Formats: sequence, structure tokens, C-alpha cells
Amino acid sequence: MINETQYDLAIIGAGPAGLSGAIYASRGQLKTIIFGDETKSNLYKSHIISNYFAFPNNPTGPELTELGLKHALQFGAIHERTEIVDISPQEDGAFQLKDSTQKVYQAKTILISTGQSYVLSGIKGEQGFTGKGVSYCVTCDGFFFKNKPVVVIGNGDYAAEEALQLLSYTQDVTILSHGKDFNINPIFLEELNKHQIKMIKSPRLATIEGPQNADKVTFTKPLEDGRTEMNFQGFFMAIGIAGANAFAKKLGLEMEGNYIKVDKNGLTNVKGIFAAGDCTGSPPQVASSVGNGCNAALSAIKLVRGLNAYIQYN
Amino acid sequence: MINETQYDLAIIGAGPAGLSGAIYASRGQLKTIIFGDETKSNLYKSHIISNYFAFPNNPTGPELTELGLKHALQFGAIHERTEIVDISPQEDGAFQLKDSTQKVYQAKTILISTGQSYVLSGIKGEQGFTGKGVSYCVTCDGFFFKNKPVVVIGNGDYAAEEALQLLSYTQDVTILSHGKDFNINPIFLEELNKHQIKMIKSPRLATIEGPQNADKVTFTKPLEDGRTEMNFQGFFMAIGIAGANAFAKKLGLEMEGNYIKVDKNGLTNVKGIFAAGDCTGSPPQVASSVGNGCNAALSAIKLVRGLNAYIQYN
Repeated sequence: MINETQYDLAIIGAGPAGLSGAIYASRGQLKTIIFGDETKSNLYKSHIISNYFAFPNNPTGPELTELGLKHALQFGAIHERTEIVDISPQEDGAFQLKDSTQKVYQAKTILISTGQSYVLSGIKGEQGFTGKGVSYCVTCDGFFFKNKPVVVIGNGDYAAEEALQLLSYTQDVTILSHGKDFNINPIFLEELNKHQIKMIKSPRLATIEGPQNADKVTFTKPLEDGRTEMNFQGFFMAIGIAGANAFAKKLGLEMEGNYIKVDKNGLTNVKGIFAAGDCTGSPPQVASSVGNGCNAALSAIKLVRGLNAYIQYN
Repeated sequence: MINETQYDLAIIGAGPAGLSGAIYASRGQLKTIIFGDETKSNLYKSHIISNYFAFPNNPTGPELTELGLKHALQFGAIHERTEIVDISPQEDGAFQLKDSTQKVYQAKTILISTGQSYVLSGIKGEQGFTGKGVSYCVTCDGFFFKNKPVVVIGNGDYAAEEALQLLSYTQDVTILSHGKDFNINPIFLEELNKHQIKMIKSPRLATIEGPQNADKVTFTKPLEDGRTEMNFQGFFMAIGIAGANAFAKKLGLEMEGNYIKVDKNGLTNVKGIFAAGDCTGSPPQVASSVGNGCNAALSAIKLVRGLNAYIQYN
């Protein structure tokens, strides 16, 4: 634990749902932190937004993002452009978050607004072997692969975090970059090297195979050393940033398909965890995300104010 | 029937929920009409809006309303500042609406976004006698008061419409203005006079009384002619404009307390009727209303596109 900071609400994702939530929470006197790079939101990537109420002049995605971020920081919310790579519930009902610089935060409540970040791997066999060697969550399934050779498939900080967590179960850990360059924070890189985790810049994986349980991957092109397949006994998918699926698995959130299940007020099935925006399957519209972010933040305010009455933090 | 015009979507209420819905519906190629005076919305009456995403400069309510209305009309939606006083389902699955000028419209779908317009009468005994002489819906309950002396309590077009509808059941109809001046459209006034409906500018009602069923009202001050009470056998509440409660009763909408029950997509229990904003009990925030208006309009688009496939309009 390098550092620790306590917040009332940690918002994961800096798109319109998260930023709207931040406006409400911070204005409602919650100590609020927003994680995420606003330029990675779908809003930012939109050329023109012509249907967000009271913007008749069709702003660009970046224009609306800039206004929204300025607005979100107006009432005292903190913004970290780092990526959250792990969340774990604490005994006192709060949550611990770790970001891509390995900095650790504590938050009483969490708003997940990671957008529709579910990345289909396109690897043949992935779905068929899910639960039979293929997993999406080291916290959930690492135990089943004790002392076995395992692979993490992904190229970013989230893949690095999953690989490091696997060291609790096995020392034989490989990361395959699945067609991309590695893009991992130096602090994580140092840890990976120290623990001799093998990082292989690989072509895209073609198949995950096995007779009963998955035991082999094949590549769309040979590796630099000429190999066209490799053997493992556990396959951990960690493509892209940690999104709704990853956090849902870590926290036991109920899903509807690929979306976090929420009610009208942004409540998930886990107390203290709220979700809003595209990751909940609501219409992928700024208007809808802004509204849901507001609703979820109001729910968080309600909960934190209640919690404050009977929970004592050190 | 003075006139008839057909729309895909009629939106009742020109606050942020209705106008956001209009943006989506009209941009989605639905022939859309918005009813209502935007200066009567709670948004318009707000001095400062400091928490609607991407407006860091704290616009006034009127400023945001003006921008929103301009935006809503940009994609071809029609705006009528008249008030809807009646809605009835048609055999073909569409709805007929009548406004305060007695103009008649047809719409395939309806979005109710009337705001929190539920007006507490403050009359002692009203709740206790509900269903025992006190009613909120002539369409629903007029039949029970055949040839009896009845009173409508209210001062506007909605009260006038309810009084006129009572003529189907009884000729002894009075309207008591309950402490306000009458404010009724000349077209309605002419009808009321023609049918000898008694309009009495009354002080506020103090009580609704009766041994078993309500049979008497008392006033907080004497009438101009000195009377301090009057006898009726039916009491129809029609204070203010027709709001969520009134339309819900006319259309058989399920309520949660004083709010129209909707799901995340703005669907009510009646096919073709959607609701959004404060009248659904969502947080009374521009952000929330804009989001819910968007969601409901998207649901209407979906339904209308489906309906178009198999329903033939003349």
C-alpha cells in the first residue's frame, strides 16, 4: 500500500454519466474523486452532439466534454486521469481501489460509469471454454489454478494487475499482448519484471483449444521465435481497460447480459455500489447518461449521509 | 369535433422532460407535437440551474428553457401553448386529445410530462370521502351521479372540461372556483353558459362533509350572497391543470402514490403511454428529467416504428 486517501464517493469513468454524478455528489458535499481519462469517453469521440437538451448549436464531443469536466470540478471534486485496476470491499463496508500507478484509495461508495467498454476478443473457443479454463477474474477464479501455468490476455495496466494478482496462486505467469503493443505503467512494469512474469508481444490469438478444459492457444501469425501455439492451463481475459464486466465479477454485481443491472435510482445489488451510463445498458445518449449519473449520485448522497450516522472511520 | 390532426407522438408538458423527449422523437422522424406553456414549468421558475451537466456558467431557468425550446423545435416538432384537458383511447389503439380551445388531435403515442402538478386542495374531508362522493375523474365516475346535483371544484379549463363532461349524466352542474378567479377559455365559457352550468366565484372550501357519503361543502368565508355552505351529491376535484393524477385515472395508468409508475424506459402499464420527469417521481432535477425524456421518446420511436408495420391509419 503506497498511499491511501479516503473519499465518500469514487467515480470510475469520466464520461457524461460519471461527470454528471460528480456535479451532484460534490455539490451535495460528498468528498468525490473521479477516475479516468475524459478523452477516452464515447462523448469525446463524438463529432457532433445534436440531441442533448438546450444545446441547439450542436457542440462537438470535445467541446461538450470540456464544458462538462470544467463543470464537474467546480464544486470541489478531484479528477485523476489514472485507470482503476482493482476494487475490493473492506470489512467496514467501504471499498479499496487501486489505480494504474498502484496508488490506493478508500471510498465509502462507488459509482461505476465505465461506458460500454466490453471488448470482444474475437478468439474462437473463448466462450465455449469459459469456466473450463477461461476466466475473467483473478480474484474470483485464481484459486483454481494453483501452481499451474497461466496466461493473461491483454496489453494494458488492467492485464498487468491481473497478472500480479495471479502470483498469489502460481509463479508461472505469462502475458500475451494479443496483437497490440504493451502499454503498461512503469511502476507496474517494474513489479512484473521483479516477479519474472513473462511478457510476450504476440499476434492476435486465433483459438483457445482443448479436449476437455482449455490447454492451448494458437496465433493468427507465428510469434517472433516461430511458435504458432502455446500451452497453458488457465486463461485470464483482460483486454482493454477494466470495465463493467471485470468490476461486476470482482464485486459480485448482478448483470443483465453484458450490463450491470441497476434500478431507476442507479442501485446495484451490492450496497454502496452504484452504476450509470452505457455500462448499465441504458440508451447510449448523453441525455440518458447525464440523467442516470444524477440519479445514482443522489442515491449515493442518501446512503453516505445515512452511513455517517453510525459508521466511524478512523 | 372541431378539428383533427394526427401525430405519432403527443407530448403533454413543455418542461425539460417533454422538450428533451421532443428533441429525440422529432429527430427520430416521429411527427411530434408538444402541448403546454413552457413558462409554467418548474425549470422556468428556477432562478439558477447549477447542476445540469456542461452548463458551468449557471444559467437561469428562463435562459435554459429558451435554449431548450429552441432546440426542441429544431427538428420539426410543433408546439402548442394550449392545455390538454382530455385524453381518450381510440379503438385503433391511438389516442384522442382535446385542448383548452376544444381542438381535437389524434396521436399514436403519448408522453406525459406534466411535472409535479398535483395540487393539494387543503379541504378537510376530501380524502376521507374519496370514493364516497368525492371523485377525480368524470370519465371514470360520472355514471354514479346520474341526475344528481354535482359540483366541480376548480377555476380553469380543466374544471370546465370536467363540468361539460358531467352533462352526459346530469344537468345540475355547478363549478366552485375555490378561492380563485375563473380563468377559462372563451370557447369553453360559451359552452358552459349554453348549458346553464352555474359558475360561482367562491372563497376557498373549508370542508367536505356528510354522514355517510359527502353531501355538503362549507366555505372559509361566506359567499357573496351570504351562504356559508352548499349541498351536492357529487364532488369532482379539478384544481389546477390536468396533471398526472387526472390523466392516470382517465387512462387507467398504474400509480405509485401520486406518481405515474414507469420503468427505466419510461413505459407505463398502458401500451402507447409513456411518462417522464417529475410526474413519475424521479428526482426533480433537469438532468434526470432530460434523461428520462430521452429514454421515453426512444421507447415511443420503437413502438411507433413497430406499429407502422401493421396498423393502417385512414
